[in-house]
Amino acid sequence: MLTVVKVGGNIIDDEKKLASFIEIFASIDGDKILVHGGGKVASAIGAQLGLVPDYIDGRRVTDAETLKLVTMVYAGLINKNIVACLQAKGCNAIGLTGADANIIQAVKRPVKDVDYGFVGDVNEAGVATKSLSMLLNAGLIPVVAPLTHDGNGTMLNTNADTIAQELAKAICKVMDVQLVYGFEKDGVLKDARDNNSVINKITVADFDRLKNDGTINGGMLPKLQNACAAIEYGVSKVIIGNALHLPELINGTAGTQIV
Amino acid sequence: MLTVVKVGGNIIDDEKKLASFIEIFASIDGDKILVHGGGKVASAIGAQLGLVPDYIDGRRVTDAETLKLVTMVYAGLINKNIVACLQAKGCNAIGLTGADANIIQAVKRPVKDVDYGFVGDVNEAGVATKSLSMLLNAGLIPVVAPLTHDGNGTMLNTNADTIAQELAKAICKVMDVQLVYGFEKDGVLKDARDNNSVINKITVADFDRLKNDGTINGGMLPKLQNACAAIEYGVSKVIIGNALHLPELINGTAGTQIV
Repeated sequence: MLTVVKVGGNIIDDEKKLASFIEIFASIDGDKILVHGGGKVASAIGAQLGLVPDYIDGRRVTDAETLKLVTMVYAGLINKNIVACLQAKGCNAIGLTGADANIIQAVKRPVKDVDYGFVGDVNEAGVATKSLSMLLNAGLIPVVAPLTHDGNGTMLNTNADTIAQELAKAICKVMDVQLVYGFEKDGVLKDARDNNSVINKITVADFDRLKNDGTINGGMLPKLQNACAAIEYGVSKVIIGNALHLPELINGTAGTQIV
Repeated sequence: MLTVVKVGGNIIDDEKKLASFIEIFASIDGDKILVHGGGKVASAIGAQLGLVPDYIDGRRVTDAETLKLVTMVYAGLINKNIVACLQAKGCNAIGLTGADANIIQAVKRPVKDVDYGFVGDVNEAGVATKSLSMLLNAGLIPVVAPLTHDGNGTMLNTNADTIAQELAKAICKVMDVQLVYGFEKDGVLKDARDNNSVINKITVADFDRLKNDGTINGGMLPKLQNACAAIEYGVSKVIIGNALHLPELINGTAGTQIV
């Protein structure tokens, strides 16, 4: 079983939480891939560089300067610090973007109404499962920054949730895969204000009902839509929950399991 | 035969020269590793970030902020752009620092008279030849940024010439290795003012004579000392010359061959 873990920005931004997470991630058994974000760190360094973020309908536009920024911050600063810290815990990590070993090729998002700039849309056909399997078989732990490339020499900015999902969908054709979305909440909540109201298990069949009765709404909707899509593609299990409870998420005693 | 190529800052800094170099590097046959610098790009971005470089006796000190800067610029911006461009030329590049797959572990330089900060001293014992061989055997082309790690979670800044040399010295124990130092001049010159006075071949035995009669002096002395040390360690050939004449350097029709 390969475990693909996405860890979100709120952990990456916080030195202590990141150190705890790295220790926990290093300790989990079996083949594993870590996908990380880092938007807040990029924004802070962008501000130091005098870059003014450009948003269209709440989505950040990746112009040429922003592409340089995220390539520096995601693939350099954040990725290498995670890799060095994992190495210190005896975990033989290797930091990658989509360009490295051509693991994820993407298509620059076509300009329709909006030009999002250097943003890469990816699907499971762009994932080099053979290269990833080779690295995993060699005992390496890929640590993937949220960047892809277009195959013509240009890096592209791609959402980390999407990368985790597409990696899981592609690799599940050749091995069993479970996908963990680690974030700051304990799971999918019955009552968004009550962190103790975690729904332990949601089947793909349940999802429509929970959506229709309004239990699942807001930002959780696309997360669960993606989770259900991954299950339908053949991913064994998707787990949503607190990144710092990773072993409990994997053994089923915490978080929300989507099956 | 594995070819380890170091490409210097004057190529990295110049978009057109870099594009030419990448095309040439992609075209050379056999196993290969590229080691790149990038100090000028780092200095420019450091200036944008308001970092004031600190030099002691002409050597830059790597304080905590400078370490962040070089990790971003070397491992992120420069490394990933080279990798993406090599991929576009059909060369299955994988960008690495010393932390990735633990390929180069270094020791933070001890503080004697001077504290150089987060600078890593490396020797061939710190090089993971097994991991590098595995990547090469899988058909991957390592592109190595001038960064190492200390094994305790900290990245370290290491000179690119040194990294190229230590990689060559370590890997030559398991396969034939030639080491190419690509820079802006055509080779070791008899007359430093005359780019047509390239010395085609220098043996380790010649070196003392050329040093004593003053033919080799200044900045070329440490380069050739390192080259001779590499030969004595078992590297087949060291070649010094114009990075943009890489095929001619390798086939012996340009540059200075140290044997």
